[in-house]
Amino acid sequence: MDTLELLRNRRTIRRYNNTPISDELLNELLEIAFRAPTTGGMQLYSVVVTRNDEMKQRLAPTHFNQPTVTSAPVVLTFCADFNRFVKWCEASNAQPGYDNFISFNTAMIDTLLVAQQFNTAAEARGLGCCYLGTTTYNAPQIAEILNLPQRVVPVTTLTVGYPESMPEQVERLPIEACIHHEQYQDYTTERIKELHAEKESLPINRHYVEENGKETLAQVFTDIRYTRKDNEYFSQVWKEFIASQGFK
Amino acid sequence: MDTLELLRNRRTIRRYNNTPISDELLNELLEIAFRAPTTGGMQLYSVVVTRNDEMKQRLAPTHFNQPTVTSAPVVLTFCADFNRFVKWCEASNAQPGYDNFISFNTAMIDTLLVAQQFNTAAEARGLGCCYLGTTTYNAPQIAEILNLPQRVVPVTTLTVGYPESMPEQVERLPIEACIHHEQYQDYTTERIKELHAEKESLPINRHYVEENGKETLAQVFTDIRYTRKDNEYFSQVWKEFIASQGFK
Repeated sequence: MDTLELLRNRRTIRRYNNTPISDELLNELLEIAFRAPTTGGMQLYSVVVTRNDEMKQRLAPTHFNQPTVTSAPVVLTFCADFNRFVKWCEASNAQPGYDNFISFNTAMIDTLLVAQQFNTAAEARGLGCCYLGTTTYNAPQIAEILNLPQRVVPVTTLTVGYPESMPEQVERLPIEACIHHEQYQDYTTERIKELHAEKESLPINRHYVEENGKETLAQVFTDIRYTRKDNEYFSQVWKEFIASQGFK
Repeated sequence: MDTLELLRNRRTIRRYNNTPISDELLNELLEIAFRAPTTGGMQLYSVVVTRNDEMKQRLAPTHFNQPTVTSAPVVLTFCADFNRFVKWCEASNAQPGYDNFISFNTAMIDTLLVAQQFNTAAEARGLGCCYLGTTTYNAPQIAEILNLPQRVVPVTTLTVGYPESMPEQVERLPIEACIHHEQYQDYTTERIKELHAEKESLPINRHYVEENGKETLAQVFTDIRYTRKDNEYFSQVWKEFIASQGFK
């Protein structure tokens, strides 16, 4: 398929059929993923491949038991990794200075570009993927299960498999909502309402509001999905974990 | 071109010819980019498009005057953006709780997936791109130039244009360096040396060592490209800037 059509028509796939993914195919896709741009050629990432059912069972609670984790043939945990690079420095009579916050962020950027390049490659082969945002929430537990050493932090997870079925594509804001020319043009309340009107009017979103007994779609996000209480708790966990893995 | 071949053969392009990029093409590519996966459908990003020469001149020093900034027809600054979402909450009688570190990280993830989806779409159209890692180093200055409000943080920049020429593809580590099965297998010094032997032996990398009067390739990174002193300075700047933009 044409690449632009592939990217334009993509969707997240959470349910998979039983078709297995061979090691050969997985390695091919990872090799292609590692062609993503990387800061200074440093490749500051590692991918942990989970195929074993027991390991999926152990990971499942760290992703709040989303069924996609145990039903996917392959689960990939993408980790920001300065461990390999630092060990290379130490083996090369060089004094690494990467135990700091900007280095973690650089590795996180590298890692996410690889994850998205993997996602596109997998979709081009007819596979479907689902990102799990829970990775940053429960990073300490994931690190323990996957035996991650110092200087390695899980930043996102992809579940991968052949689609059981093809869901409808979900909505996006009008593109002008996210584009600014030359300088950022801040939004008036009226403009915000215009840009979100179509999203709010969709039957699926009206259903979410009703099902949760809320007045507005935004309240579904603030009161149920991404609450202040959860955000403040997970902020503390994530901040402390990054530091404890060696990035102060 | 086949998507997998496109991804496999891609390379960073730093020099561009004079062919302009139409608004129509740019908007098409951004629309496709916004189809990247996004946390909870929140689309926590904005893209600031720089075409104006004076604006490129102002941005150039924040990217350490890399010539790619002023020579590219288009420069895109990808920003983690919770401003639009919070304003939507406030316009919808909802109480946002996103002034915290995990929310910034979630927005940063969304933003980087969009950047990489843009990069792939642009390459599929025959364009070339270059990521600028300097964005996180000089985020405060970039935010001032682009008039970024509270809750908006620039996380990466892409320069975009038609390639002046096609450089050689750069090296990558053997894929097994970055893949772990079921659990992370830490590296012995011997294994590190094996995995980096080919990289170190390449004429281009031997040239870097010699040109900089160093003993090893790793020293070129630790002593010249990414030094402890710079990393510690930019860590402080980046950490303070994230907090000052409203993510404590």
